[in-house]
Amino acid sequence: MSGNDSKHPVRENDVLAVLPELFRTGDSSVIVGCGPDDCAHVAVGGCEGGRLAFSTDAFAEGSHFLPEDSPKAVARKSLLASLSDLAASACRPRWALVSLCVKKGAPGSWAAEFAGGIAEAAREYGVSIIGGDLISSGMGTFVSVTVAGDPLPGGPLLRSGGRAGDAVVVTGELGGSIRGKHLAPRPRTREIAALMEFAHISGVRGQYGSPGAAMDISDGLALDLSRLCRESGAGAVIEERAIPLSDAAKASARESGRSPVAHALSDGEDFELLLTMPRRLWDAFAAFLAGPEAPDGLARFTRIGIVTESPALLLTRPDGSVCPLGAEGYQHQW
Amino acid sequence: MSGNDSKHPVRENDVLAVLPELFRTGDSSVIVGCGPDDCAHVAVGGCEGGRLAFSTDAFAEGSHFLPEDSPKAVARKSLLASLSDLAASACRPRWALVSLCVKKGAPGSWAAEFAGGIAEAAREYGVSIIGGDLISSGMGTFVSVTVAGDPLPGGPLLRSGGRAGDAVVVTGELGGSIRGKHLAPRPRTREIAALMEFAHISGVRGQYGSPGAAMDISDGLALDLSRLCRESGAGAVIEERAIPLSDAAKASARESGRSPVAHALSDGEDFELLLTMPRRLWDAFAAFLAGPEAPDGLARFTRIGIVTESPALLLTRPDGSVCPLGAEGYQHQW
Repeated sequence: MSGNDSKHPVRENDVLAVLPELFRTGDSSVIVGCGPDDCAHVAVGGCEGGRLAFSTDAFAEGSHFLPEDSPKAVARKSLLASLSDLAASACRPRWALVSLCVKKGAPGSWAAEFAGGIAEAAREYGVSIIGGDLISSGMGTFVSVTVAGDPLPGGPLLRSGGRAGDAVVVTGELGGSIRGKHLAPRPRTREIAALMEFAHISGVRGQYGSPGAAMDISDGLALDLSRLCRESGAGAVIEERAIPLSDAAKASARESGRSPVAHALSDGEDFELLLTMPRRLWDAFAAFLAGPEAPDGLARFTRIGIVTESPALLLTRPDGSVCPLGAEGYQHQW
Repeated sequence: MSGNDSKHPVRENDVLAVLPELFRTGDSSVIVGCGPDDCAHVAVGGCEGGRLAFSTDAFAEGSHFLPEDSPKAVARKSLLASLSDLAASACRPRWALVSLCVKKGAPGSWAAEFAGGIAEAAREYGVSIIGGDLISSGMGTFVSVTVAGDPLPGGPLLRSGGRAGDAVVVTGELGGSIRGKHLAPRPRTREIAALMEFAHISGVRGQYGSPGAAMDISDGLALDLSRLCRESGAGAVIEERAIPLSDAAKASARESGRSPVAHALSDGEDFELLLTMPRRLWDAFAAFLAGPEAPDGLARFTRIGIVTESPALLLTRPDGSVCPLGAEGYQHQW
């Protein structure tokens, strides 16, 4: 963690580190509060002991989208990236609230087109938009989305659930999101539902165990894996050859001179899931996905490594050599 | 609704008007969705049939606070104004999520001091901060707060609950909030709880009826009363002499050359409650507040007029003359 002196800009982790203590509460309804996880979890009234998951994400012009991005694209990104946090906690999306601050001087249709994009994305994922706020500012366009949902059977999953020996699994392909995916996240709502349903059914049979940890990859695989491992009190060994590389990572590599794997490890805004689960669950789930009963159109799941007792993060190179995996990635600073 | 051509800026009401239809949902869990009310209300799991209220508010540098305002003041305003929406729906605050976009170049301590202000205000109102997001932007500082809570007994109250013959009641004193109150809202959490508890107890006795409509006064009494009346399919007659004038409204009047009442009617960000209730409930509640069992330290409640069947908004002048009450107030435009 960097120091906060006049020579160094403030980094988001410096501030985030103090918040769990600052916002500690004696409120017994708060099951998972302010902290490292993608969602908060609270107990809600009713004798069934219901739980709700909440997450908030903010998006600013110049940081998460550009002035020339269409209002519809900005809207879709904002809602879909927020839904990714619910998927990352193994929760089903239910409701969302959207705040929009429109830049003064924006085209007259900006807010209405933004709202249309929100409505479209909400329908695609079965989310009800139940409220929001609309303001304007001379400073720039800003969006904040709060989503709420229910844990899937066996959920929620936290970052702290990784156990030595678990398989490390990711969805989709990684890297190069700046070439388009950063504006068009595909929250892995259906994928996590398929996994949790499979694990729940097999869990009833007591065969394979349950998924352990989960989060989404928003700041690069290496940094986000380091976060998951820290919360789990564990480490990981990742096989470089197993990392699923996106075409965009390869295209970015041709321009940057870095390797596609470097892009897959450090590029932000992939919005894929990073999961851990017992090896036998992974083997069974992978077989299920390859079989005739697998749901159509799911993103691929790939096992990329293993959780270790030792807290180190290591990368196995194609030549068999092993090197430390640097926790690179994106952090906000100011 | 104003046209959206190059000569006229877009006004927030033009956009807000289309959202209820755009975000209409077949989701039966949504009891009150996107629309005129201060909070959304959803049914949550559990056989008790629990309900939760949600509200989101956004705040932008230059619109809701100034670059020179302290981070603690910005934080307090953001959370407290959001809690005002829960009070305005007769709901008890439970949880909040806070997004902060820090302007690049802000002092290194800005975000930490902001977080301290949030924590302080949350403790004062018994709210648990369960999550949030922290980002940065070159454009400016923005805040978005989402609050969730439970309906008080007899709640929630909506804007549509006003009935002809009801007393129109406000809390506190109105006008001139720019002189300080706009940065230091006092959400009427305890006041609405006192009213709802009183009405609930007397309701059990079947004596006085229940509060009808509620909202908070954020864009000026005249504009917000027009909104309440429109939703209630009613009008109102307000007695000018009864409007509780703040010292700030009088000070603003000395500078502006307008009357203190004009400030009380049109100044935004009062964050007081605007309520309707049967006359007999008002009479009983006013007597209760004047008696020995009234809770200490509540803001005053004042009856300022009556709900009418005719949809007109009228103001009775001190000389007995009656004039139309213009729906002035603050609207965002861009």
